[in-house]
Amino acid sequence: ILSKHIVVLPGDGIGPEVCAEAVRVLRAVADRFGHEFHFDYHLMGACAIDATGSPLPELTLDACHQADAVLLGAIGDPKYDNAPAAPVRPEQGLLRLRKELGLYANIRPVMAYDQLLEHSPLKADRIQGTDMLIFRELTGGVYFGEKGRFNDGNSAYDNCTYSREEIERIAHRAFRAAETRRHKLTLVDKANVLETSRLWRETVQQLAPQYPSVALDYLFVDNAAMQIILNPRQFDVILTENMFGDIISDEASVIAGSLGMLPSASVGDAVALFEPIHGSYPQAKGKGIANPIATILSAAMLLDHFGLTEEAVTVRDAVQHALDQQVVTPELNPATRYTTEQVGSFIAYAV
Amino acid sequence: ILSKHIVVLPGDGIGPEVCAEAVRVLRAVADRFGHEFHFDYHLMGACAIDATGSPLPELTLDACHQADAVLLGAIGDPKYDNAPAAPVRPEQGLLRLRKELGLYANIRPVMAYDQLLEHSPLKADRIQGTDMLIFRELTGGVYFGEKGRFNDGNSAYDNCTYSREEIERIAHRAFRAAETRRHKLTLVDKANVLETSRLWRETVQQLAPQYPSVALDYLFVDNAAMQIILNPRQFDVILTENMFGDIISDEASVIAGSLGMLPSASVGDAVALFEPIHGSYPQAKGKGIANPIATILSAAMLLDHFGLTEEAVTVRDAVQHALDQQVVTPELNPATRYTTEQVGSFIAYAV
Ligand SMILES: CC(C)[C@H](C(=O)O)[C@@H](O)C(=O)O
Ligand SMILES: CC(C)[C@H](C(=O)O)[C@@H](O)C(=O)O
Repeated sequence: ILSKHIVVLPGDGIGPEVCAEAVRVLRAVADRFGHEFHFDYHLMGACAIDATGSPLPELTLDACHQADAVLLGAIGDPKYDNAPAAPVRPEQGLLRLRKELGLYANIRPVMAYDQLLEHSPLKADRIQGTDMLIFRELTGGVYFGEKGRFNDGNSAYDNCTYSREEIERIAHRAFRAAETRRHKLTLVDKANVLETSRLWRETVQQLAPQYPSVALDYLFVDNAAMQIILNPRQFDVILTENMFGDIISDEASVIAGSLGMLPSASVGDAVALFEPIHGSYPQAKGKGIANPIATILSAAMLLDHFGLTEEAVTVRDAVQHALDQQVVTPELNPATRYTTEQVGSFIAYAV
Repeated sequence: ILSKHIVVLPGDGIGPEVCAEAVRVLRAVADRFGHEFHFDYHLMGACAIDATGSPLPELTLDACHQADAVLLGAIGDPKYDNAPAAPVRPEQGLLRLRKELGLYANIRPVMAYDQLLEHSPLKADRIQGTDMLIFRELTGGVYFGEKGRFNDGNSAYDNCTYSREEIERIAHRAFRAAETRRHKLTLVDKANVLETSRLWRETVQQLAPQYPSVALDYLFVDNAAMQIILNPRQFDVILTENMFGDIISDEASVIAGSLGMLPSASVGDAVALFEPIHGSYPQAKGKGIANPIATILSAAMLLDHFGLTEEAVTVRDAVQHALDQQVVTPELNPATRYTTEQVGSFIAYAV
């Protein structure tokens, strides 16, 4: 029996709606298994800018630091999308939160669900059985390097740096994950062009002897972007740097049949954060059509993180049950009339 | 009636085999239309390292500078793949050639061939009719920025820079291409994170009024990596920087059903270069199984570049004829026994 404090950052767009359903499911888990989960809600993203002027208010950051885990919905608002040079933007809140909490490893499982094979743009026989785990480095690289303008604003630069330590800490996690899975680790880089990639390759290669049961291989990122579509079953654990991870993990999401199915965990040395990989989808806000499953599966990863394996399995089984019964939002079955809340309630009830 | 000097750089692996067929087709075009094409062969890549110690000998570079066009096979050898830190590597030759010849725009058409729909991992109804043109910036960005190590080799950096001029010259080409097509241009960037992307967006936005018939939109690269698979028909012309272009153009190749179908042109202010997007595929070397069509279609782009539109159309029709008759290499039809040379000869004969 556990007592845990969870900070919820519903964020923007559909964020609050999908978070509400994940919280509903977590409450059901607490009831059924006798845990105590306390939820504190805080502002981040465009809603935080509107309310406080900052995308990540200090109050929010402090609460996250003190929490046992953070559950995040989504951030982003169209009014900032066409103003990428606006001085304050929602993304800055997310990037700063990742950095401040030291969330250096973003873990994204990608699965082909048998019930959703027909929804993928990929042929069913190519993807059936796909089960990969992407480790994306999240607090380094070009995202956090020095950037700016020179030459009167007519030139711009973004610097990418990585240190051996930054690579090692996430590589160890990826190797350990591979040990518990199919014992294969693929490093995705561009070592034929980038010096940082060469450091990644060197460093990961040097750790490999510590994990003798894991077969390590390498793919250039351009080839990886192809292989993920051509033959996704070849992958077990993928490890890559921040920018490449952003691209290939979103790309890989097509395998699941809907972006609304993909959870993620961001972990580091202290508190961990859980969020769906989809964005704030502002066009769908308030319509009750947002798929809450990605956030609910993120909550399952949160339970795993607390060591609550049985509870996590129960949530995943409940999701499978919803898929089996076609209790899904319209993007997965235009014929159904289930709302975000109905899907969440069904899953919570099945827990 | 034209007289042209074409430098051929067969390169490594299957490069020489596919180049031989493209040259065969170009000779057939010259015969049929009464042109004179002179072919000069030079070394680049691993074969050049073996012979001269340099991946791009000065003799080769000089010949390219003086040529009317360059036809390239492929470069790369497995002995360098696992030694990304080797002081001399085949890729350096290619990157230097791009830079020295000022080939700042790499143009990659991606089409779904009706005859090959079944070969794509994507469902036929998602891709049928796809016809996009990717403009990848080729001489700037992180590929050519300063790179190195610090902190006793324990940290590495790669700097990405872009200037307004570098963006403008390729953007003008992309806008002009869109004017002759479906009047849509999509800029792929990561303007919510990168300063260089913000400069791209700003610069391209400022050019847009010069092309009033072209609708300009923007996609973040992570979303683009998804959209290219989810709904490739939405794209007409895509414009992007070097690294993103490397990734998404290889990814988009899955639409064509085989990497062996995809040609490219690299253009700048002087001589232009034409090459298949596939690599040197060393495992297939000498087996007669390499698909020569990507190189033959690159030769068609070369003819277009010479202003020989009818000749280019004739070559593309001949390729369609080969597809119709299933005169293709084994990766497109395991039941056929056609070799690289037989496919090339069939197409040359149909010219
Ligand atoms: C919103 C954006 C800054 C973010 C990123 O690029 O990391 C998002 O795409 C993600 O993957 O979480
Ligand atoms: C070989 C490599 C350096 C090259 C690149 O990344 O540009 C290749 O992938 C390409 O796309 O032509």
